[in-house]
Amino acid sequence: MSRLRFTISMSLDGFVAGPRQSVKDPLGIGGEQLHEWVIGLAAWREAHGLTGGEVNENTRVIDEAVTNIGATIMGRNMFGGHPGSWEAREEPWNGWWGDDPPFHHPVFVLTHYARPPLAMKGGTTFHFVTGGIEEALTRAREAARGKDITLAGGASAARQYLKAGLVDEMELHVVPVLLGGGERLFEGTGTALHGLRPVRTLATREVTHLKFARPGAA
Amino acid sequence: MSRLRFTISMSLDGFVAGPRQSVKDPLGIGGEQLHEWVIGLAAWREAHGLTGGEVNENTRVIDEAVTNIGATIMGRNMFGGHPGSWEAREEPWNGWWGDDPPFHHPVFVLTHYARPPLAMKGGTTFHFVTGGIEEALTRAREAARGKDITLAGGASAARQYLKAGLVDEMELHVVPVLLGGGERLFEGTGTALHGLRPVRTLATREVTHLKFARPGAA
Repeated sequence: MSRLRFTISMSLDGFVAGPRQSVKDPLGIGGEQLHEWVIGLAAWREAHGLTGGEVNENTRVIDEAVTNIGATIMGRNMFGGHPGSWEAREEPWNGWWGDDPPFHHPVFVLTHYARPPLAMKGGTTFHFVTGGIEEALTRAREAARGKDITLAGGASAARQYLKAGLVDEMELHVVPVLLGGGERLFEGTGTALHGLRPVRTLATREVTHLKFARPGAA
Repeated sequence: MSRLRFTISMSLDGFVAGPRQSVKDPLGIGGEQLHEWVIGLAAWREAHGLTGGEVNENTRVIDEAVTNIGATIMGRNMFGGHPGSWEAREEPWNGWWGDDPPFHHPVFVLTHYARPPLAMKGGTTFHFVTGGIEEALTRAREAARGKDITLAGGASAARQYLKAGLVDEMELHVVPVLLGGGERLFEGTGTALHGLRPVRTLATREVTHLKFARPGAA
């Protein structure tokens, strides 16, 4: 069965975005520090249609994260910023990623606003799911045709899937910075690891990767 | 110059003690999970006057932490539980550690209650410091005679020294559990790493050790 996987970068003080997130500053103040380790990598640049970049110990982690993915689920904020900012527009909002988004497979967007599917160049189609996280997962599983599903974020969507015990694999990229405030991944997510167990830790100079998986879901 | 060092175990969700800490349950609910990786180690048992125990990859971390220490600083809670619980007793409270505490050097306890020094067996003397964290550090430096000083905790004392920029070395032992509540180390500690930089990461099955140091303080 296809697994639901997600990866997220987190500061030492537990934040996945800095304070005062906005449409202009979606990562919040200082939040860009969480992603410095990844945006210079050739593996990340290639996945986003760019050339060049570095190959280092972190490359393996990105390669793993993008391998065998047949569908993506994301929260509404990740698709388009703050509540109402894209759903209510007269000109339809088609996401942050231009005409040819880097997914190249079906993407299921959690929202309260029904909207017809949106087919983009390069094989990406955005589907707008109003029936909640379980419906999105069911539809993504069907669309993934046996491959895995990646939960692209944001933190709120990730928390909902964690609390529901639906995540099969989670990788935290712990970045040695303090953001001092912002959005926490683990807030009201309880005391169990949602059925997950540590399976791999990879420490590099820039970031420590802590990978967890549900036993038997491999 | 002797350095101020501290190490602490922290959950994935950033807690260094679980919820509802009390004199009976000083680590809070679930907090004992933070220390499971250490209490079975021969290195830890030996430092506490016990025999037996395991030698594994984590041994090196404990060996480093106890090497070249000439004095200890601790907060009042670590010495004796909740406010007033030991300062106000008629029978003097001499700490949790029995007649022969495992320090074997001078220990400086931060408190608001003046009290004469308390000499125990085995070379441990507790000094009660009412002048604040800088006075405790100055006196500990003098007592350490060129060796380093360890900040034994708890989290509140550690936060005060971090915020004052007085910590020269910090090691976080990140344990793959969620406590869901309790006391955070990084709460109101700002956005800079207090002058510290990552110097070493060691990942084991049970725990990931993230070590930070002040450049030039080695």
